[in-house]
Amino acid sequence: MMNVPLNIATMLERAEALFPKKQVISRMKSGIVRHTYREIGERTRRLASALKQLGVEIGDRVGTLAWNHHRHLEAYFAIPGIGAVLHTINIRLSPEHIAYIINHANDRVLLIDEDFLPVIENIKNEIPNVQAFIVMTEEDSVPETSLSPVYHYENLLQKGEAHFAFLKNMDENSPSGICYTSATTGWPKGVVYSHRATVLHSMALGLADSAGLSETDVAMPVVPMFHVNAWGLPFAAVWFGTTLVMPGAAFTPKILAELMEVEKVTLAAGVPTVWLGLLKELEKEDYDLSSVKRILCGGAAAPKGLIRAFEERGIPFVHAYGMTETSPLVVLSRLKSYQQHLSKNEKLDIRAKQGFLVPGVEMKVIGKDGDVSWNGTEMGELCLRGPWIASEYYHDERSKESFRDGWLYTGDVVTVDEEGFIKIVDRTKDVIKSGGEWISSVDLENALMAHEAVFEAAVVAVPHPEWQERPVACVVVKEGKTVTKDELYDFLRPQFAKWWLPDEIVFVDEIPKTSVGKFLKTKLREQLRSYFTNTN
Amino acid sequence: MMNVPLNIATMLERAEALFPKKQVISRMKSGIVRHTYREIGERTRRLASALKQLGVEIGDRVGTLAWNHHRHLEAYFAIPGIGAVLHTINIRLSPEHIAYIINHANDRVLLIDEDFLPVIENIKNEIPNVQAFIVMTEEDSVPETSLSPVYHYENLLQKGEAHFAFLKNMDENSPSGICYTSATTGWPKGVVYSHRATVLHSMALGLADSAGLSETDVAMPVVPMFHVNAWGLPFAAVWFGTTLVMPGAAFTPKILAELMEVEKVTLAAGVPTVWLGLLKELEKEDYDLSSVKRILCGGAAAPKGLIRAFEERGIPFVHAYGMTETSPLVVLSRLKSYQQHLSKNEKLDIRAKQGFLVPGVEMKVIGKDGDVSWNGTEMGELCLRGPWIASEYYHDERSKESFRDGWLYTGDVVTVDEEGFIKIVDRTKDVIKSGGEWISSVDLENALMAHEAVFEAAVVAVPHPEWQERPVACVVVKEGKTVTKDELYDFLRPQFAKWWLPDEIVFVDEIPKTSVGKFLKTKLREQLRSYFTNTN
Repeated sequence: MMNVPLNIATMLERAEALFPKKQVISRMKSGIVRHTYREIGERTRRLASALKQLGVEIGDRVGTLAWNHHRHLEAYFAIPGIGAVLHTINIRLSPEHIAYIINHANDRVLLIDEDFLPVIENIKNEIPNVQAFIVMTEEDSVPETSLSPVYHYENLLQKGEAHFAFLKNMDENSPSGICYTSATTGWPKGVVYSHRATVLHSMALGLADSAGLSETDVAMPVVPMFHVNAWGLPFAAVWFGTTLVMPGAAFTPKILAELMEVEKVTLAAGVPTVWLGLLKELEKEDYDLSSVKRILCGGAAAPKGLIRAFEERGIPFVHAYGMTETSPLVVLSRLKSYQQHLSKNEKLDIRAKQGFLVPGVEMKVIGKDGDVSWNGTEMGELCLRGPWIASEYYHDERSKESFRDGWLYTGDVVTVDEEGFIKIVDRTKDVIKSGGEWISSVDLENALMAHEAVFEAAVVAVPHPEWQERPVACVVVKEGKTVTKDELYDFLRPQFAKWWLPDEIVFVDEIPKTSVGKFLKTKLREQLRSYFTNTN
Repeated sequence: MMNVPLNIATMLERAEALFPKKQVISRMKSGIVRHTYREIGERTRRLASALKQLGVEIGDRVGTLAWNHHRHLEAYFAIPGIGAVLHTINIRLSPEHIAYIINHANDRVLLIDEDFLPVIENIKNEIPNVQAFIVMTEEDSVPETSLSPVYHYENLLQKGEAHFAFLKNMDENSPSGICYTSATTGWPKGVVYSHRATVLHSMALGLADSAGLSETDVAMPVVPMFHVNAWGLPFAAVWFGTTLVMPGAAFTPKILAELMEVEKVTLAAGVPTVWLGLLKELEKEDYDLSSVKRILCGGAAAPKGLIRAFEERGIPFVHAYGMTETSPLVVLSRLKSYQQHLSKNEKLDIRAKQGFLVPGVEMKVIGKDGDVSWNGTEMGELCLRGPWIASEYYHDERSKESFRDGWLYTGDVVTVDEEGFIKIVDRTKDVIKSGGEWISSVDLENALMAHEAVFEAAVVAVPHPEWQERPVACVVVKEGKTVTKDELYDFLRPQFAKWWLPDEIVFVDEIPKTSVGKFLKTKLREQLRSYFTNTN
């Protein structure tokens, strides 16, 4: 067989050749802008050429600080297209962390949305190795800035060659991208993606039994492009000629609902908090979302009530699981053919699990006594291997904690049922160790969030003098609803063994979250640390 | 990213783990037999182990002469599962050619359906390097045979280990299979498949925009397993947990129709002659084929009338293109999203083309003056490259004719329309060169076969004293129908320029075919060689 390397640029070339009329639709400050793949192709070639003119070499890192829009998409292909490495910077990190990762990756050039100029201006003295700042602005000139040298994105494109030829024959294991995990403690950790991994992961997204991404789809990645490459959707969508809807900056649930309705979105992808927000909007106002064939939800476990609410509105809700280290798709919840006859509730129970392995990835689940049984109850840490799973953190001593014997130890505690569906029951660090037994904080949270008056709930381990740790629940009540502690205990009691019940339920205004919308349990634990020692 | 090699055994392991209850249904002489993937997994491990016990080493070739059934499927995974090479022998080749390819591949062991014992017995003195003959029989013992040493497949399995561990860490470019093209002239040419190519090709079959093979499918490969791995369907089906229906030996259109009805087949794959035969059967008798979601048709261009007939029966007909050298899937005809609104006839015109490139493969089309325009009329030779395209013929001097500058020159003459759909208009050797212009024999054939009284038609170039070559048509009339030469000319005239019309239409009883059902034009050309010199 031919020794043809898997390469990201060939994916864009397919869109240019076969789908030149299909569109990328971006919500910008000026309104909706539309570019065909023919235009995106030419603009990407110009950008690639311009980056080379700026001195970007094979293997150099180029950072982006940008929302989801067509220019960011162009960077996704132009940077790997010259053999350089796309470093998508999480704009929600602290300035200190942003400076750290720019230096750690050794970014040579930064592409920056106008919105984020102040962020970079503030840390400019800490990032001396950056040699050029390219501002993605819609204005005719770069706004006043202390950064230097600074370039205007569109003017730069004019200087690039429209027919620039991408570098396509490099080793498929060459790095194509890097993304840092938004660690809740310590410095962010970098994951390096390769051309090979990106192409294989894109194929996995297109499988009929996976996300089934197709040319006939109109896909809206709500998940940010600085977060695990928006789950790889931009790469796959371009390859398959899928219409892309990019929601841009500072969108609200209302804006998302309108975009989905007007652009006839068929697939939208984002974290549970996005869909909780959208659900509230749908409860307020009517939208025609009949075009939506599935919502992909990952990044955190989606509460069953959320899944049910969308399913009842006729919007199939596909639960998936992955992490920065896994590109991210590894597990996706689809009913098997012989599960189609099950009752609505039984199906919902299955859909609420994270699902089973997509083709191409292998797993093992290690409990206290080695491999766990697939019985739906035994808990263990999920370990993964496969061609789109990281093998290390970039130049990071912490690699040895997570990568052992050729496997990624995910830090996620799961059960596996008889059908191979995994269910995340906790993080190894969040699971509550009470008197020698394990209690899943996530199971308790999902149960609480299934209550009609509960908007969000987080359950954390609090040190306990007698039991080592005990669960405490923090609950946010829905607007316009009321509920008492006793009512919540009555609601939980039939569902759990007595010793699983939280020792306390605390009502709060909001749950602190990470930059990507996950519950920030470290903060809650910190706040509640001395709860039992103070009150008992 | 992890350096995890793509490997065929992991595909079966996925079926064992996630789809142990799903079935492989084989039509055997004793009737229908059903095996679950749990059983297939164990039997395959036993076979792998038994082959090792017989002395098969990494890289050794193991030949199969078998119909489509579960035992052949087991060989598909057991042989690559020990690092050996699966050599699927085309049972329709001449004994001379069979002996040639067994020796050329240097097969060490042969797995043989009882039906083909006489074939091998007849050539046993010509294949001295074969060290073991394993007979796939349903009887309790091996029938009387002059072959030696001979083994009984099922007894051998009993001696193998049920939990044998497959070899999974070998280089993904290691050979996993070899298939010889049924050349119409000269010795067959061998194409070597690798683990990498097989896994990537399987992914391509699962893409929503390609064959979309899914766990929910019931797939029936009618295309033989000795012909380009039954188009790779057995590999992909096992990986995705798809139910497989194996039609076994000597099936008729009636048997196929019954299998499709009873087993609720959703996808069937085969060459046009199979579907022509099925269509005749459907015209005779009623079958409920409402389960069928698509028929995959390749191996030769399907006449438009055939496609229309199936579509009118509510059975979507998907035209595809490939060859032994391409694993085979490279091109598949699916309407693009914005072509859905076209009229029925316009859609049919598109579906009658071979389609556009699936993700992962690149093409160029070389005409008289280099790359042809995508205008639907300019003709050129299709050239392909990609990770599941062959780079050479196995130990064969003829490689240099077909593999040049990193491309496979397919020998197929195509046009490409504005949307990138290719249409095979001929073979480079069959195109009719008349007075400096090219006439597509295939276009004329399809036009003839669209006539309601025509069952089959072949058009060949016949040497002509004045025009160099001129087309002559050979036509088979449908049972119970009549048509005259003049009526056929009247039918063709509005569709073609005058100089395209065949100089003669000859009525024949049948068109000679190759072992895989393609028109054997060399034979027709031979018969008609002196047509003009004799008659003019």
